Amino acid sequence: MDILKRIEKLRHWLGSNHAEAIVIPSTDPHCGEYVPDHWKIREWISGFTGSAGTAVVTTKDAALWTDSRYFIQATEQLRNSGFLLMKENLPETPTIGEWLSSVLPTGSKVAICGEMFAHQEREKLAKELKKGISIKSFVDPFNDLWDNRPDLPLDKIYKQPIKYVGIGFIEKLNAIRELLKKEQVDNILLCALDEIAWVTNLRGSDVHCNPVFVSYLLIGLDSTTLYVNSQKLSEELLNDLENKNIICKNYKDVFKDLSKLDSLWLDPSSTNQAVYEALKVSPIEKKSPIAFLKSIKNKQEIEGFHQSMLRDGIALVKFMKWLRPAVEKGNETELSISKKLEEFRKEQENYLGISFDTIAAYGFHGAIVHYEPTNETNIAVKPEGFLLLDSGAQYLDGTTDITRTIPLGALTPEMKLNYTLVLKGFIQLGLAKFPEGTCGTQLDILARQFIWKEGKNYLHGTGHGVGSHLCVHEGPHQIRMNNVPAALKAGMTVTDEPGLYLEGRYGIRIENTLLVIPYIETEFGSYLQFEHLTLCPIDKEPILIEMLSRDEIEWLNSYHQTVYEKLSPYLCKEEIEWLKEATKKI
Amino acid sequence: MDILKRIEKLRHWLGSNHAEAIVIPSTDPHCGEYVPDHWKIREWISGFTGSAGTAVVTTKDAALWTDSRYFIQATEQLRNSGFLLMKENLPETPTIGEWLSSVLPTGSKVAICGEMFAHQEREKLAKELKKGISIKSFVDPFNDLWDNRPDLPLDKIYKQPIKYVGIGFIEKLNAIRELLKKEQVDNILLCALDEIAWVTNLRGSDVHCNPVFVSYLLIGLDSTTLYVNSQKLSEELLNDLENKNIICKNYKDVFKDLSKLDSLWLDPSSTNQAVYEALKVSPIEKKSPIAFLKSIKNKQEIEGFHQSMLRDGIALVKFMKWLRPAVEKGNETELSISKKLEEFRKEQENYLGISFDTIAAYGFHGAIVHYEPTNETNIAVKPEGFLLLDSGAQYLDGTTDITRTIPLGALTPEMKLNYTLVLKGFIQLGLAKFPEGTCGTQLDILARQFIWKEGKNYLHGTGHGVGSHLCVHEGPHQIRMNNVPAALKAGMTVTDEPGLYLEGRYGIRIENTLLVIPYIETEFGSYLQFEHLTLCPIDKEPILIEMLSRDEIEWLNSYHQTVYEKLSPYLCKEEIEWLKEATKKI
Repeated sequence: MDILKRIEKLRHWLGSNHAEAIVIPSTDPHCGEYVPDHWKIREWISGFTGSAGTAVVTTKDAALWTDSRYFIQATEQLRNSGFLLMKENLPETPTIGEWLSSVLPTGSKVAICGEMFAHQEREKLAKELKKGISIKSFVDPFNDLWDNRPDLPLDKIYKQPIKYVGIGFIEKLNAIRELLKKEQVDNILLCALDEIAWVTNLRGSDVHCNPVFVSYLLIGLDSTTLYVNSQKLSEELLNDLENKNIICKNYKDVFKDLSKLDSLWLDPSSTNQAVYEALKVSPIEKKSPIAFLKSIKNKQEIEGFHQSMLRDGIALVKFMKWLRPAVEKGNETELSISKKLEEFRKEQENYLGISFDTIAAYGFHGAIVHYEPTNETNIAVKPEGFLLLDSGAQYLDGTTDITRTIPLGALTPEMKLNYTLVLKGFIQLGLAKFPEGTCGTQLDILARQFIWKEGKNYLHGTGHGVGSHLCVHEGPHQIRMNNVPAALKAGMTVTDEPGLYLEGRYGIRIENTLLVIPYIETEFGSYLQFEHLTLCPIDKEPILIEMLSRDEIEWLNSYHQTVYEKLSPYLCKEEIEWLKEATKKI
Repeated sequence: MDILKRIEKLRHWLGSNHAEAIVIPSTDPHCGEYVPDHWKIREWISGFTGSAGTAVVTTKDAALWTDSRYFIQATEQLRNSGFLLMKENLPETPTIGEWLSSVLPTGSKVAICGEMFAHQEREKLAKELKKGISIKSFVDPFNDLWDNRPDLPLDKIYKQPIKYVGIGFIEKLNAIRELLKKEQVDNILLCALDEIAWVTNLRGSDVHCNPVFVSYLLIGLDSTTLYVNSQKLSEELLNDLENKNIICKNYKDVFKDLSKLDSLWLDPSSTNQAVYEALKVSPIEKKSPIAFLKSIKNKQEIEGFHQSMLRDGIALVKFMKWLRPAVEKGNETELSISKKLEEFRKEQENYLGISFDTIAAYGFHGAIVHYEPTNETNIAVKPEGFLLLDSGAQYLDGTTDITRTIPLGALTPEMKLNYTLVLKGFIQLGLAKFPEGTCGTQLDILARQFIWKEGKNYLHGTGHGVGSHLCVHEGPHQIRMNNVPAALKAGMTVTDEPGLYLEGRYGIRIENTLLVIPYIETEFGSYLQFEHLTLCPIDKEPILIEMLSRDEIEWLNSYHQTVYEKLSPYLCKEEIEWLKEATKKI
């Protein structure tokens, strides 16, 4: 088996480098959620393809840590691989540091690839390791070990027009420089690719579903340097950057330049260990300010969201009108309907691709929260039960993220009850009014209160920020059960996506993307509220109307009226008929 | 003026001790909320009598920091005192460390009394001070400086019967020793007086409204030492402690003994700096486990709560029946009705005193959240508007805390609207169902959601734990807007007390004490709910019934039925008539 040979090769490398183990997380040098193929080292060494997991190889053992989403998949994929599955967050599972402390003798060296290891994670590992076991950073050795390793992508970088981004690159740099002065620091290095894309108003296609490009951005008080493979820049773009006094250097040159700096701001959560080791001074460690700046959408970005939501809504209505008759014909599968949805979206202006892998989860697959149909798992979609469809698109002027739970035929009373409970929570969160300074955790119960009364719950977050033609997940704010100390501010986007998952049976999730907007000013301060950006009918068939309160019914009718008014001018007669029915008052 | 002379004396002491400043917080060696008169040094030096504040005296300046609750009072009390008022938490106000850094030359020494300074606060101050300014701990010098300083109280300590505390002293020690073993530490020093009272099952009367006694408790794996003035122990109690192998030593001997320990657990938030300075080893710093153990009430404690709530409810009904006719006669003031309420409570079995200073706030006084009538502020109570009455009692078997907002005559429609909004929040929080692991911050919005929709808010917490014949405020859990990472557990008491305060006009607050109890067990886990412990009618007159939802009306009627059923057997005919009307269905 390939994996066994790879482990053997890696052990040979360990031996030549006097190391007793190597820890391989799923991150790349930019600590993002998605990783270019070039850096899918953990997948290559273990064969495990899930998005989250860490492989550890010692001279004698091999183990892979992943979370409950992937227990079944990892069990299958690791069979006969030589890797032991370590089920994260179970009480009996040791942490990586604990396990290494137990299997390695004192005096051992644990190797990491400095570039592909977040500094924060390196510090955590160091704390967990027993005395006498040390960590050593190496330069990525996998070019030699990995036959046919994919190259880093060379796709061209493109400019986001000012009409979509609203604020120019130079203007953003000036705002960041003011923050540097306030913190009394001379430079900041940005490693997170979406932060670099936002500051520079550039986009790329290096990472699946995320319009970012591989680079580092060093912003000093007087100069700005973009570290990027020059083949990715057109002559026009190069000239443009030169006109803006932006220095372009080779991607790898960043380490040399860092070693010369006297003062630097780093975000330990998004900076890799190799950056830290290149420094001659101690950096100021603090959350990057970009996530917050980026999260507040300006007028043009909000307009872009409205426009892309309109187009997305049109595509979704066309899809939904098509769906039930197609399913009744009996030839559809999870993958075929995903493809069909993509086709409808492709017809729309400014469409650039999906914003994450479509979750088209039929029946019992709906209960697997992060399910994504593949050739191996794909099942037929029948005219009964629920289809959970969580999808989104990248448009040049905005990013979308929407979930609908669509009844394809007969539903049980329990399905209707659960759908209505989730819908009530979805509506009530959207109706929230709250003072400036309120964090998502304080609002979270509005979405959960009704299912909690039934002793039910969902274990994912209720909401996350959405980028403006950027990543579909962005912070710093979230709406979730555990504490995330970032207040909601006017201009932030955030999803509203409660759900309910009954293992082996079905899943329900309803999701719109919302915008935080001002509500009222009173003697008690400024209050905020939400506006629904998503334009798409919410299926009324499963609703137990008698369970809805007056304000919930009013909201649903008013939302549907808006959906109808906004979308119908762009639809043909049959589509309008379908939409009229779908948005009719209850 | 006395204060100026005191400052002069203190400056003389600074000079002789080569210090340039002294920081005097309102805490005592036990870091509690209330302080025996002996340790009211900040009040003595500044003349400011509020519960929270820190005085700082330098060789040239004097300033006092306090929060917004006390801005008006402090302005008046500090007039001509030589103290500058520093309004805490305003953006323009420096912290104590920042201010000292600006007024003191490099090389200065800042004095603190190690015993009367929480270690955690000392560390915070040290971080704020610029380089070159150091902190030095001194032994309390105020015995010499303060003429007629009150002595430490010598009142006798008494035993809480096992029928009320449920778990014996030795049993509690064993549980704590298990925790010590788990943490691999040999000793823990308890400094918080309510923690010592809880562990020892002893009570005292050293602190106003709090049945605690001044002491330290050192629990080792093999021995336990109580450091307390021996005059406070009866011979019987001494024998009893001896039989339990508890060593009793002088209060001040703790420092000598600490210097001999090799291993110690300290809670930095409740331990004073002098303790830290007595040690020869670094302690393990971690929250004391006692707050959590104490917060989970056992069967006997819960029964005690039920019994004391019954008696408290009887007293309150008698008081409420008396109130309106008395007010109509025209001779009542805030102080006279506070006294009357106390008289009704005194008639009850096991009554030992009030659990905090009664807030009888009439009219515009109701808008001052921490108002407490004094001879200077006392006003007549007239047959119109709202009386906000927040009060509680210490019974041998439980502690009570209740607020009612009582209409004494004509109300405006706005008063009724606000009362109804607060009541809705009060009811909805009480109706919450939530999974194990939920923290108060997640529930808080249930109490605020309706007033937030009107752009209104209250800035205090929504709920706190209540001790079992102990402090009326206890942790670790709370229900409030900011994050308090302590989950609610079955057996915890917690108040439910939303409010609304309109400056210069009136205040509204409705408060019951609740008990966390199991709700249901499902495939999603264990769920919790609340039971109302407090038994007292909630005034229906101000309710705008059409604003209540069906579940809110049902709850109120059912609660009132319970109140009637439980209290009426103990009331006379006229009182029963009054209660029947007060608890009639809406």
